[in-house]
Amino acid sequence: MASAEKLSDIGEFGLIGRLEAIFSGPPTPKNVVGIGDDAAVIPLNESWDLVITTDCMLSGEHFRFDFTPPHALGQKALATNLSDIAAMGAEPLYALLTLGCPPEAWVEDVLAVARGMQETADGFDVSVIGGDTIRSPSGMLVSVTVVGRIEKGRALLRSGARPGDAVFATGTIGDSAIGLKLLTGPDSGKGAADTASIEYLKRRHLLPEPRLEEGRLLSSEALATAAIDVSDGLLADLGHICERSGVGAVVWSESIPVSNEARTIAQGSGFDLHSLVLSGGEDYELVFCCKPDCVARLHERWVKTPLAPIAQIGEIVEGSGLRIEGLPEGTERKLGRGFDHFAGP
Amino acid sequence: MASAEKLSDIGEFGLIGRLEAIFSGPPTPKNVVGIGDDAAVIPLNESWDLVITTDCMLSGEHFRFDFTPPHALGQKALATNLSDIAAMGAEPLYALLTLGCPPEAWVEDVLAVARGMQETADGFDVSVIGGDTIRSPSGMLVSVTVVGRIEKGRALLRSGARPGDAVFATGTIGDSAIGLKLLTGPDSGKGAADTASIEYLKRRHLLPEPRLEEGRLLSSEALATAAIDVSDGLLADLGHICERSGVGAVVWSESIPVSNEARTIAQGSGFDLHSLVLSGGEDYELVFCCKPDCVARLHERWVKTPLAPIAQIGEIVEGSGLRIEGLPEGTERKLGRGFDHFAGP
Repeated sequence: MASAEKLSDIGEFGLIGRLEAIFSGPPTPKNVVGIGDDAAVIPLNESWDLVITTDCMLSGEHFRFDFTPPHALGQKALATNLSDIAAMGAEPLYALLTLGCPPEAWVEDVLAVARGMQETADGFDVSVIGGDTIRSPSGMLVSVTVVGRIEKGRALLRSGARPGDAVFATGTIGDSAIGLKLLTGPDSGKGAADTASIEYLKRRHLLPEPRLEEGRLLSSEALATAAIDVSDGLLADLGHICERSGVGAVVWSESIPVSNEARTIAQGSGFDLHSLVLSGGEDYELVFCCKPDCVARLHERWVKTPLAPIAQIGEIVEGSGLRIEGLPEGTERKLGRGFDHFAGP
Repeated sequence: MASAEKLSDIGEFGLIGRLEAIFSGPPTPKNVVGIGDDAAVIPLNESWDLVITTDCMLSGEHFRFDFTPPHALGQKALATNLSDIAAMGAEPLYALLTLGCPPEAWVEDVLAVARGMQETADGFDVSVIGGDTIRSPSGMLVSVTVVGRIEKGRALLRSGARPGDAVFATGTIGDSAIGLKLLTGPDSGKGAADTASIEYLKRRHLLPEPRLEEGRLLSSEALATAAIDVSDGLLADLGHICERSGVGAVVWSESIPVSNEARTIAQGSGFDLHSLVLSGGEDYELVFCCKPDCVARLHERWVKTPLAPIAQIGEIVEGSGLRIEGLPEGTERKLGRGFDHFAGP
């Protein structure tokens, strides 16, 4: 019986689908991209579109203060939103911050969140221009909205992938999930501990770098047919592209860029590297698709600019769903479908 | 010692002041209105400015499901944001919804929130174009961001009031606070219960009407020097105008428009009407200032359009702070300074 369903029954993506049906009604103008992409796109003027995205973090759910310094939280809260702007190929301009705190929170901690956010805003020439402050007795809430702009019609949507497109990823994948295990688990000091690697991986979780310049190059030179940022997990996010584009994808697991730090620490700590790389999430790297006849130009343009490296990790195919090649026997069964906020990992 | 302060020590407005100092740094362009008004204002193109506002509601803090139907919650969550847009004199265009829910929430309740929001969006030609869904184990969280536009330079700021300006309010003040008492208290059936009045007042709390047309008339015809919506309480909100404008105000308590329903029920239930009218909050009426030589034109323009009635409730004076005239002996001492989310009412 539909009326007896709980959110945990339909999951986050089930809910999003139903919300989309409710909100896709008549007032939405034709040239607007609404729910279902990294950011919404609305017309600004003859030359530019506006992009707008929002992302909310709750203590205990998305971060824990026992391993997240307030300053880093402020940086990350903005960076994850900037990552959505990057996935659209857009340029960020303005941010709003909604801050919910228990009344007994220390003022210095709250201001450290704000200072962290302002530091990241400074780094990307973003102005924090408003927001809301509320009482949140059960813990801190940090919700950020970012407004950016992009040349008219150039936004990198999830829906543009076509069979034959090459699938690329920026940077390295899996660092953040391993970093989180090191931050939370009993494994942080285990084995022949390589302190520098451990610190690197923790930092990759706490302080993700939005790939804004990479996204700008992809959109301004029309090098990508579709893009997304890796927040839920590589497979889940590439799956979003496939679903929105009506295509499938083959992922070459051996080609996914993994850092030496991740390999070393995963091996030393007995982590399941494949699973963390494919389903871990929160890497905030870009995954994008490139037409076969654009791949040469992509590599050519890429080497001219000091950007995060890119690697081809598979290709788009007809059909639907993901096929993963090159996995060790038995690994596939253990892979989750990425993070679902209502159903859990 | 500054480092040992808690939020409850400095209050919501103390926090906002410190956040403003952190976020008012260099990247903010000159022609942008940032933190400290009902909405931020940013340049859109040669003819229009963009306004953007965000408002977050938590269950247990801003609403309670025992007397707030989920559909009404969705309507109110958008309406309160539209009220901020109205207070700028702007036209709303787009909304984003961040919805946080416990996994055990009923899908039908969550979708009812969305349907309520869409119903209000339909009524004001607003498109819901995006948002975020998160797990919120301690209760529901509804955060809305609204983007609108206004003719360049015409936004009604809090900072424009000047000594001599007449202070006006739309509609009636205090209904919402009395409605809330009826919804929560043991008084709802008390005395010679006038069912229609009780229902009217409850409705005024649950389903506020954003004064968008009123705000548009004020801005498009340059009839107001400053405006705000009554969310924290009449005195608190007029106080925000005074603070931002560097002026004081005299409020004529006998001139504040109060509904017959509010008078009747307050009398019958022994509520302190003066206190609820002056400090109750959540009326979402507009309070605005009008130059003395514009008052005749204001009344003339107002009668031509079917809008919420307006009444002059006082005037702006040199200096700072509010002086309330016409209060019964002893009432003034009981007045709070409006709602402060960290310090309580």
